[in-house]
Amino acid sequence: MDNVNYMNEPKLFRQKVRSGKWNKPTFNVCREYVQANLVILPKRFAFDFTLFCLRNPKPCPIIEILEAGKYKTKYLSREADIRTDIPKYMIYKDGELVKECESIVEYWKDDLVSFLIGCSYTFEEALVRAGIPLSNSNAGKDVSVYITNVQLVPAGIFKGRMVVTMRPLPPILVSRAVQVTYRFPKTHGTPVHIGPGSEIGIENIHNVDFGDPPIINDRDIEVYWGCGVTPQIVALESKVPFMITHKQAHMFVSDLRIEEIAES
Amino acid sequence: MDNVNYMNEPKLFRQKVRSGKWNKPTFNVCREYVQANLVILPKRFAFDFTLFCLRNPKPCPIIEILEAGKYKTKYLSREADIRTDIPKYMIYKDGELVKECESIVEYWKDDLVSFLIGCSYTFEEALVRAGIPLSNSNAGKDVSVYITNVQLVPAGIFKGRMVVTMRPLPPILVSRAVQVTYRFPKTHGTPVHIGPGSEIGIENIHNVDFGDPPIINDRDIEVYWGCGVTPQIVALESKVPFMITHKQAHMFVSDLRIEEIAES
Repeated sequence: MDNVNYMNEPKLFRQKVRSGKWNKPTFNVCREYVQANLVILPKRFAFDFTLFCLRNPKPCPIIEILEAGKYKTKYLSREADIRTDIPKYMIYKDGELVKECESIVEYWKDDLVSFLIGCSYTFEEALVRAGIPLSNSNAGKDVSVYITNVQLVPAGIFKGRMVVTMRPLPPILVSRAVQVTYRFPKTHGTPVHIGPGSEIGIENIHNVDFGDPPIINDRDIEVYWGCGVTPQIVALESKVPFMITHKQAHMFVSDLRIEEIAES
Repeated sequence: MDNVNYMNEPKLFRQKVRSGKWNKPTFNVCREYVQANLVILPKRFAFDFTLFCLRNPKPCPIIEILEAGKYKTKYLSREADIRTDIPKYMIYKDGELVKECESIVEYWKDDLVSFLIGCSYTFEEALVRAGIPLSNSNAGKDVSVYITNVQLVPAGIFKGRMVVTMRPLPPILVSRAVQVTYRFPKTHGTPVHIGPGSEIGIENIHNVDFGDPPIINDRDIEVYWGCGVTPQIVALESKVPFMITHKQAHMFVSDLRIEEIAES
C-alpha cells in the first residue's frame, strides 16, 4: 500500500528519494507526472547553454531554469529541492566524472544555474493512453538510447551531436504517435526521424549507447525522438570546468501532471 | 511591378528599408513571411531577459537570439543585418526614449545581444487562409493593442504586465482561430483570453494603447493573443541603462515562410 502510494504520488516519491530509500531509475515511476533531466552549470556558462537548448529544442526542450544559487523549483514543484530529490547525481570536473552520489548539498555553490529539461518518459504515458504499445516499457525495460551523427546548431562553447530515443512501432500507429507527441513540445515533441537508424548514424540498433536494447516485432518501424541526454553529453564534451547532472534514467519526478505541460 | 515585388519578397523589402525608402509600419507587408519584434540589450542583462521570455512564452516567444556583438541573423535570414533592416528603431537610456532613427549602426557595441521575438502579424495570414476575417486588417488598419493587468512571471530585474492584441471574431469561428494559431507557438500561439476584456483590465476596448481601435461587428467575441510589445515594455519599465528596440508596428521582415515556423 505504501508502495502503491509513492509510485503514484510525486511528493511521496521524492520523500523516499530524499531519505535515501530510492536510488534506482525512474522509468515507470509516477507515470501520470512530468519527469525531467537536470543539468547544473556555473553562471558564466548559463546564457550560452540556454542558447544551445533554444537552438535545438527537439533534443533540449527547456522546462524550467533556476537562477544562480536557487535550488527550489517553482514551476515543476512548489516544494522540491533539486539538490536532494533526484535518485542519483553525477559530478564532473573538466569533462571527467569525479563522483556519483545521492545528494549534492555539499557541492552546492551560489553561482550554479540549474536547467530542468524535458524527458520522453513523460510522453510514454500519453502514448500508452492513446493505445500505442511500448514494447520495452511493457517488458519492464528502459527505452533504447543512441548517439547519432546529426550535428546540432552550436552556441558559444556548446556543440555536439543529437542523442535519440527509439521506440519500434507498428506502421499503422506511427501517425498517431506523431499526433500524440505533437502536443508535448516540452518533452521532445514529434519524432525527429522515422525509418532506418542507419540514416542518422546508428549502425546496429541492438547496440545501444544507453538504456536497454529494443524489443522489435516483425514489420515494426523505427521511430526516433530527441533525447534529454543530449544537453548533458554536449556540456560534458565541452569540458566545462564544473557540472552536475542527474545520472541517466534517474530523473527528477515533478508535481506537474502530463496534461499540464501539453501545448495549449 | 517593382511595388508588387518588394511587397512580397522579403529580400527586396529589406533592401528598400536599408536604403531608407521604407520607414512605415510593416503590417500587410510580405504576408507569407514571418515578421519579428526586436529587443537589443547589453550582455549582462541577456540571461535574465531570456529567462523572462521563457517563463512567459505566450507574449514573449523567442524566435532567434544573436550572441553579443552579432548583428547578422542566421535562422530568420541568411543575409539580414538587424542594424539597418528594420524601418524604425527606438533608442532608450535608463528607461527614457532618447532617439528614434532608421539605422543603429552608429550605436552598435560589441556587448549587445539581440532578441528576435514572434509577432502576431505572422499568423494573421494563416488565419485569413483558414477563412477567418480580420476586420482591422481588411480595412487597412493595424491590430488593436492593449496593456492588461495580468502580471507576468518575473526573472531578475524583469517584471511587468502582459500586452495583448485583440481581434473581434464571429463566435462560430473562435474554435477555428484557436486551432490555426495552436500550430504557431513561436508567434504567440493560441489566445490567452476569449471574452470581455474587462476581466484582464481593459476598461474600454475602443481606447487602445497601441495600434488602431477595433472594428467590431454585432455579436463578435473579443479574442486576445499575447503581443510582442510585452518584452519591450517590460525591459523599458525595468529601466535598463541602454536598450534598442524596433518601433512598434515597424517589424523585422524575415525570409522564413509562415509554414517554416509552424510547430512540427
